[in-house]
Amino acid sequence: MTYEVKSLNEECGLFGIWGHPDASKVTYFGLHSLQHRGQEGAGIVANDKGKLQGHRDTGLLSEVFKAPEDLEKLTGSAAIGHVRYATAGEASISNVQPFLYRFTNEQFGLCHNGNLTNALTLKKKLEDQGAIFNASSDTEILMHLIRRSHNTEFLGKVKEALNAVKGGFAYLLMTEDKMIAALDPNGFRPLSIGKMKNGSWVVSSETCAFEVVGAEWVRDIKPGEMVIIDDSGIHYDSYTTDTQLAICSMEYVYFARPDSTIHGVNVHTARKNMGKRLAQEFKHEADIVVGVPNSSLSAAMGFAEESGLPNEMGLIKNQYTQRTFIQPTQELREQGVRMKLSAVSSVVKGKRVVMVDDSIVRGTTSRRIVQLLREAGAKEVHVAIGSPELKYPCFYGIDIQTRRELISANHTVDEVCDIIGADSLTYLSLEGMIEAIGIDTDAPNGGLCVAYFDGNFPTPLYDYEEPYLKSLKEKTSFYLEK
Amino acid sequence: MTYEVKSLNEECGLFGIWGHPDASKVTYFGLHSLQHRGQEGAGIVANDKGKLQGHRDTGLLSEVFKAPEDLEKLTGSAAIGHVRYATAGEASISNVQPFLYRFTNEQFGLCHNGNLTNALTLKKKLEDQGAIFNASSDTEILMHLIRRSHNTEFLGKVKEALNAVKGGFAYLLMTEDKMIAALDPNGFRPLSIGKMKNGSWVVSSETCAFEVVGAEWVRDIKPGEMVIIDDSGIHYDSYTTDTQLAICSMEYVYFARPDSTIHGVNVHTARKNMGKRLAQEFKHEADIVVGVPNSSLSAAMGFAEESGLPNEMGLIKNQYTQRTFIQPTQELREQGVRMKLSAVSSVVKGKRVVMVDDSIVRGTTSRRIVQLLREAGAKEVHVAIGSPELKYPCFYGIDIQTRRELISANHTVDEVCDIIGADSLTYLSLEGMIEAIGIDTDAPNGGLCVAYFDGNFPTPLYDYEEPYLKSLKEKTSFYLEK
Amino acid sequence: MTYEVKSLNEECGLFGIWGHPDASKVTYFGLHSLQHRGQEGAGIVANDKGKLQGHRDTGLLSEVFKAPEDLEKLTGSAAIGHVRYATAGEASISNVQPFLYRFTNEQFGLCHNGNLTNALTLKKKLEDQGAIFNASSDTEILMHLIRRSHNTEFLGKVKEALNAVKGGFAYLLMTEDKMIAALDPNGFRPLSIGKMKNGSWVVSSETCAFEVVGAEWVRDIKPGEMVIIDDSGIHYDSYTTDTQLAICSMEYVYFARPDSTIHGVNVHTARKNMGKRLAQEFKHEADIVVGVPNSSLSAAMGFAEESGLPNEMGLIKNQYTQRTFIQPTQELREQGVRMKLSAVSSVVKGKRVVMVDDSIVRGTTSRRIVQLLREAGAKEVHVAIGSPELKYPCFYGIDIQTRRELISANHTVDEVCDIIGADSLTYLSLEGMIEAIGIDTDAPNGGLCVAYFDGNFPTPLYDYEEPYLKSLKEKTSFYLEK
Amino acid sequence: MTYEVKSLNEECGLFGIWGHPDASKVTYFGLHSLQHRGQEGAGIVANDKGKLQGHRDTGLLSEVFKAPEDLEKLTGSAAIGHVRYATAGEASISNVQPFLYRFTNEQFGLCHNGNLTNALTLKKKLEDQGAIFNASSDTEILMHLIRRSHNTEFLGKVKEALNAVKGGFAYLLMTEDKMIAALDPNGFRPLSIGKMKNGSWVVSSETCAFEVVGAEWVRDIKPGEMVIIDDSGIHYDSYTTDTQLAICSMEYVYFARPDSTIHGVNVHTARKNMGKRLAQEFKHEADIVVGVPNSSLSAAMGFAEESGLPNEMGLIKNQYTQRTFIQPTQELREQGVRMKLSAVSSVVKGKRVVMVDDSIVRGTTSRRIVQLLREAGAKEVHVAIGSPELKYPCFYGIDIQTRRELISANHTVDEVCDIIGADSLTYLSLEGMIEAIGIDTDAPNGGLCVAYFDGNFPTPLYDYEEPYLKSLKEKTSFYLEK
Repeated sequence: MTYEVKSLNEECGLFGIWGHPDASKVTYFGLHSLQHRGQEGAGIVANDKGKLQGHRDTGLLSEVFKAPEDLEKLTGSAAIGHVRYATAGEASISNVQPFLYRFTNEQFGLCHNGNLTNALTLKKKLEDQGAIFNASSDTEILMHLIRRSHNTEFLGKVKEALNAVKGGFAYLLMTEDKMIAALDPNGFRPLSIGKMKNGSWVVSSETCAFEVVGAEWVRDIKPGEMVIIDDSGIHYDSYTTDTQLAICSMEYVYFARPDSTIHGVNVHTARKNMGKRLAQEFKHEADIVVGVPNSSLSAAMGFAEESGLPNEMGLIKNQYTQRTFIQPTQELREQGVRMKLSAVSSVVKGKRVVMVDDSIVRGTTSRRIVQLLREAGAKEVHVAIGSPELKYPCFYGIDIQTRRELISANHTVDEVCDIIGADSLTYLSLEGMIEAIGIDTDAPNGGLCVAYFDGNFPTPLYDYEEPYLKSLKEKTSFYLEK
Repeated sequence: MTYEVKSLNEECGLFGIWGHPDASKVTYFGLHSLQHRGQEGAGIVANDKGKLQGHRDTGLLSEVFKAPEDLEKLTGSAAIGHVRYATAGEASISNVQPFLYRFTNEQFGLCHNGNLTNALTLKKKLEDQGAIFNASSDTEILMHLIRRSHNTEFLGKVKEALNAVKGGFAYLLMTEDKMIAALDPNGFRPLSIGKMKNGSWVVSSETCAFEVVGAEWVRDIKPGEMVIIDDSGIHYDSYTTDTQLAICSMEYVYFARPDSTIHGVNVHTARKNMGKRLAQEFKHEADIVVGVPNSSLSAAMGFAEESGLPNEMGLIKNQYTQRTFIQPTQELREQGVRMKLSAVSSVVKGKRVVMVDDSIVRGTTSRRIVQLLREAGAKEVHVAIGSPELKYPCFYGIDIQTRRELISANHTVDEVCDIIGADSLTYLSLEGMIEAIGIDTDAPNGGLCVAYFDGNFPTPLYDYEEPYLKSLKEKTSFYLEK
Repeated sequence: MTYEVKSLNEECGLFGIWGHPDASKVTYFGLHSLQHRGQEGAGIVANDKGKLQGHRDTGLLSEVFKAPEDLEKLTGSAAIGHVRYATAGEASISNVQPFLYRFTNEQFGLCHNGNLTNALTLKKKLEDQGAIFNASSDTEILMHLIRRSHNTEFLGKVKEALNAVKGGFAYLLMTEDKMIAALDPNGFRPLSIGKMKNGSWVVSSETCAFEVVGAEWVRDIKPGEMVIIDDSGIHYDSYTTDTQLAICSMEYVYFARPDSTIHGVNVHTARKNMGKRLAQEFKHEADIVVGVPNSSLSAAMGFAEESGLPNEMGLIKNQYTQRTFIQPTQELREQGVRMKLSAVSSVVKGKRVVMVDDSIVRGTTSRRIVQLLREAGAKEVHVAIGSPELKYPCFYGIDIQTRRELISANHTVDEVCDIIGADSLTYLSLEGMIEAIGIDTDAPNGGLCVAYFDGNFPTPLYDYEEPYLKSLKEKTSFYLEK
Repeated sequence: MTYEVKSLNEECGLFGIWGHPDASKVTYFGLHSLQHRGQEGAGIVANDKGKLQGHRDTGLLSEVFKAPEDLEKLTGSAAIGHVRYATAGEASISNVQPFLYRFTNEQFGLCHNGNLTNALTLKKKLEDQGAIFNASSDTEILMHLIRRSHNTEFLGKVKEALNAVKGGFAYLLMTEDKMIAALDPNGFRPLSIGKMKNGSWVVSSETCAFEVVGAEWVRDIKPGEMVIIDDSGIHYDSYTTDTQLAICSMEYVYFARPDSTIHGVNVHTARKNMGKRLAQEFKHEADIVVGVPNSSLSAAMGFAEESGLPNEMGLIKNQYTQRTFIQPTQELREQGVRMKLSAVSSVVKGKRVVMVDDSIVRGTTSRRIVQLLREAGAKEVHVAIGSPELKYPCFYGIDIQTRRELISANHTVDEVCDIIGADSLTYLSLEGMIEAIGIDTDAPNGGLCVAYFDGNFPTPLYDYEEPYLKSLKEKTSFYLEK
């Protein structure tokens, strides 16, 4: 069978807590603040003195935990939770995490954010040894590796398994008497530790959850680390020393919440800085700055501040975005009927607008917004993008479409400008982005993974190597047999 | 029986269209953009060559029209729709509009935004004459008055009925062969006319719906006007000449969408101007400006621009605000667990913050946000409010709480500053607000109703007069027998 | 506008209670046992010391009262409830009963089982006087008549209204301090009074509810009676003396539950007697008796007992009859795929079967069952029907299809036998049916309404007169302008 | 951990089809007729030219397949389906079948009816070898055994696995190119083969599904058989010759649908014969026979026919048994308020009643029904049970409660009679039951498993042996560590 690569990639959110009487409820609120990382499934596994119980389903957190009982049954003082982003699919509930494993003699909860690059090889090998996989995601692999390890110590088994999996991963593992958090050797995904006023330890994909649950940030988990939390406290261990920080730059550009801080850099501030730097690199005359809501508002603030141009609300996003089966027909769309975004004539009419956005993937959205602004009377529309050209796919956990769908993999800046119908198009330079984010000036790329922009992947690609190289030659999308 | 005044007041959204093959679908999209005006009920009545059919229910628009059939059954080339804001109550679906009246010889659809001040008197009188009211809202009164009018012409009946009702109202009436829109003599509520590319006429509470359905604004309906739309076109008529524009100032301050334009003034621009003027009136030193999301972002932009202070994203609202039964317990709340809003430490830490908000009603929200900012490390919190002190209730359709619940009806500015825990508290002056909005410099209060701020109601209060005067003496809330 | 007659006719169930701390809960259980009388809507209005509250919706009782709160909010010691049978229609919740009327100075709950024959005339007249009808059913008419009566006493108003409406009706009216039950002058519909162990009075359409709520039967309400129940006890009054019992014979034949007793005759026993009498009138040789489940099992028992033939379970009805959107396609149906009823080959193979059913309306069901039995191997199928030929429509509350759809209005017994593919077809004679039910040998037709069989309606037909007479000439269905 | 034995036992229904363009739709209708075998979960796996897809969820079939798409997406010409009976539990959807296994190189659908007696031992052993179980049911074990078999032929692997599992089982296995049905060496559970008019092969737990889908019965699957169906036709094979038919007698007594035929004996006829034989063994005088609806109606027919007493409808079951959250409180229950069953006074008053039921488990239901009949006026109530005393649990797939809950495991017939308040109590003798069912006079117990009645289990009990023997000594319930 053949699947498109994109269905393998996924972004998710993790939250865990140890030592709180309302562990599952706190986890619910923590996950609520991570909902932007995944809207297609959610779940919690709670630990009540060694007895694990779980609840999970497809949908938003508020749909998964509909009735008070759904949460109240998850008693105990420790819990892990997950929100999942994934293409909807058959039997999809099987893929919703955390997974709850009940062996005759022990129990585990497990969840995962990231994408393994050697999943296929490992899965085939394990199946040949009799393993049965229940879900189609990569996550189960770790559990099979742990259970099959011949190491005599449990932590040794986990370390052995963590060394076998490759790619991008942040794991949260709940055992009967401890919680383990682990990060891949490049720290592609964010994962932080916090502490609540009552002494509970919390782990979260983003620090925004700490503000929400009233926890204080302690420190970020480092590449290659394995953190063990139990009743005796927190223990920092590592399963490898061969590490090199390469945190996903798209977390800063688009994905993370602006109030999160990753490796010491606040996301809103990083975006504002990218906006400032973009204003410096921008070469055109204009009257007003309009950010595309909501992800580009910080960059627009920075652009406006640096350029001295007024920052205006020229685009409005409808805040009621519930799923609806009612959609405009093609005919209505041609008449101008639209639901999500509208341009404000009285703001943009007759103006030379700098439209600030975070990135361009396929170009269709940008083209639509440029057109909206023009229809609303904008005299000129100059598109300014807070990141470099997106040219390469991601193999570490972000669902960046195949190269075929990346407009910049196939077109020059001038061509893209033309396609989206803008008067000019300016991308932030790679150096500009690295400096604007500014985590660590000593590390390669300032500690960032920027492979989407320059194609230099910080790790071998394993199962993806061959099809990826082939795709480069074909200048088109590529597939991976799975 | 005794009801609190607040349950009488309501804000709603109206949308109507005449002459479009997908009338009910366009109405759906129009209402979608008016959803912020009412989230507790929605409905549409469509007119298929004189045959009226309706669908309505409690909940958001997307919940009311769940299945494609719900909308597809509403065939025809004309439709009116309504979104309703109201306290939930028993048999609440009875109150959801538009109402559909089926007489032996004719049919009507009717919906309404506003509040009548003589509803009680009219209702009692009609009941004494044998009338049966089905719903508890004021809306039905108009239909009873029309049906009982002895005028021989239909439009004469409607005019007679419109002259009998007092207070704030915008009506949309669908008959078998025409659509009628009418506004009260003070134009308390907004109501505009637009035209689609295919020639269809549309009527909407706010112009934001025009951008969404691809219509162009034609003009706003004037106080005392009655607009008749049928297959022969549009006809402007009026049922009274005793008119005086007094559009609700809270529409600009808080209620309307920033991309709407009311009486020639864009709401975002009005808010930005209020922010600028507020910056001029503001007397304190500060480092950054932080707007309370989402309604105060425009005012914060204006404040920042005028003051030269940087505009920062120091408060983040969770965009996933689906209804949930899971709420923090009191204990969790004390531990700092919260769901909707969080302050960004890395932005506000050590800073003197100007927190810009649109208004203060009870003061509880302001106190909570000030506390959030302090916990996140703000050195000082200066609260700046984009409108004057809210001291009086509204009788024309906005659900402003009873005086008992209005903090400024009972406390001085200094006391309020103390209660909300701010370092300083600045309200925009009444003159400042009137000039910043700036509709019409010749009209009293610049064409605005500012009774919430100064207690000078532009009309007699009828049924509310006596209890209101009594409440002023008691310095507490007041009730109206209904 | 033109509606088919059938949409006017409806059968429903009523239940009321006065003087019980759990009044609405007892009403729920009472209605549960009346669910067979109406599955398309249900509701309860409870009276808590003069304050009336209601809950109603479309669907089965268990769907209408989904959450415990739905019932718990209906506090008070008195309640009336309704289950509704009706063709689904637009805005159908408006027609679900009981209706709750809230006037400025008083409140009422009202529900109704039956069909008025002068509804159209009354409605037009009331509308001409300014009345507004909210629902399309007949029920509201009574409330308009009561409110408009010039009688000075409340009970006088009710009597005046009851004398104005014509046709078949059983009403339950809840006021702030009493409950009133009333029956039409022919007693077309059943309505009985019971008493619970704690002294509470209960009123129910069928006595089966008494067994379910632990009440003892006291007596049936008589034609033309109006029974008033309040804290002082029960009072029997009447609004007319011009009465003549003509209880609907179809209640015994098909509609009522077998454990109910109407006018002293148990329904199961009546059906068993009809089966016995049918066996006497039956002229053919056969091996086994097979009743069509579930309504004809009693008649089959009687037929078997009288004839000496074994009673066998040759037809099985699937007990899981939840609504489902999945239905066999035409192709599957031709392959023999069916969901609701199956014939048991091992029981009927090679046998001469007497298939006992209660009635034949259109003939399509009978033809299908005969075919099922033949496919399962029955050697002969003799159809025996426990009632006479159905030739005329009903105007008093039972949804008997238009004459066009009544197979016996258009075909002889031999033709029908041919159409349904039976070896023989035997109907119970009219005399046989009257004697088998045996309520009252002195009254015309033994106290039964048998107009469906002989076309002799016991009352004038008012609004239906003209279209009905016209339909008789045309030998086809007929319509009534409404 | 410790679980009660009862949670291991379950009864289910299987249906499979090969070679039909609407395979999943036919499976839906087949399962619909098997709904009585399991109401807590349902699912279908369809095979579209080697590609397997599934849909499953908790609830009734009509709840699991709510939307047409749920079924339409299951394209292909072969399918297997399952309805599940089980105690509700956490993560229960994981246990809903059929399971769909997707390996890198092949796919399987698997479902199961029965209970393995060596599941615990096998599971522990497999886990020690690294196996991960996803569900808590026994079913997965077979898949692990197949995948780990060293046999080189696929059918050899399946045979090896079938020889390893012990107890009661009927399996349906869908591979990419065939469907396999297998039965345990005692044939504890029924499983039959049918053929549709278009040549499709169907497999079903009960033959009632054949009538519903228009298939003709071909033959029952024999103990130890493994039937392979593929495009080339049907192939009967066997994995063991050490077989002895011992079909569960409770299938005839209570579980199966009356229109099913198992091993040549129609279930209704078997029940009627049990009723006749019971009448012969019955020693008391009585006036009427009343069957407890619905399962005992056949036995009551037989009893009445044999005894010459009239068969009456003295007990009525409410046909609207939708799940409801509204239940009578204890107080209401004492007042006589009940929902499901009522006795008909006018039928039983003053009569000596023979109340015919199929079995007595805990005795609580019987006591309640006896009381209902007495309250309705029955002079005497003689209870006659269509099977012997239930004294022992079942380990082969029927959820018979622990011995502690079996009234006859702890009390004599006289004691039970006393407890349920009957005037007399008669059980059918074991010989009587065996002869009345009468499958095969040569086999031990006539080919039936009657261990519930005499404690002679036809197989070793493996994991259950020790706890069962211990429970016998303690005269109480027993538990199995799992």
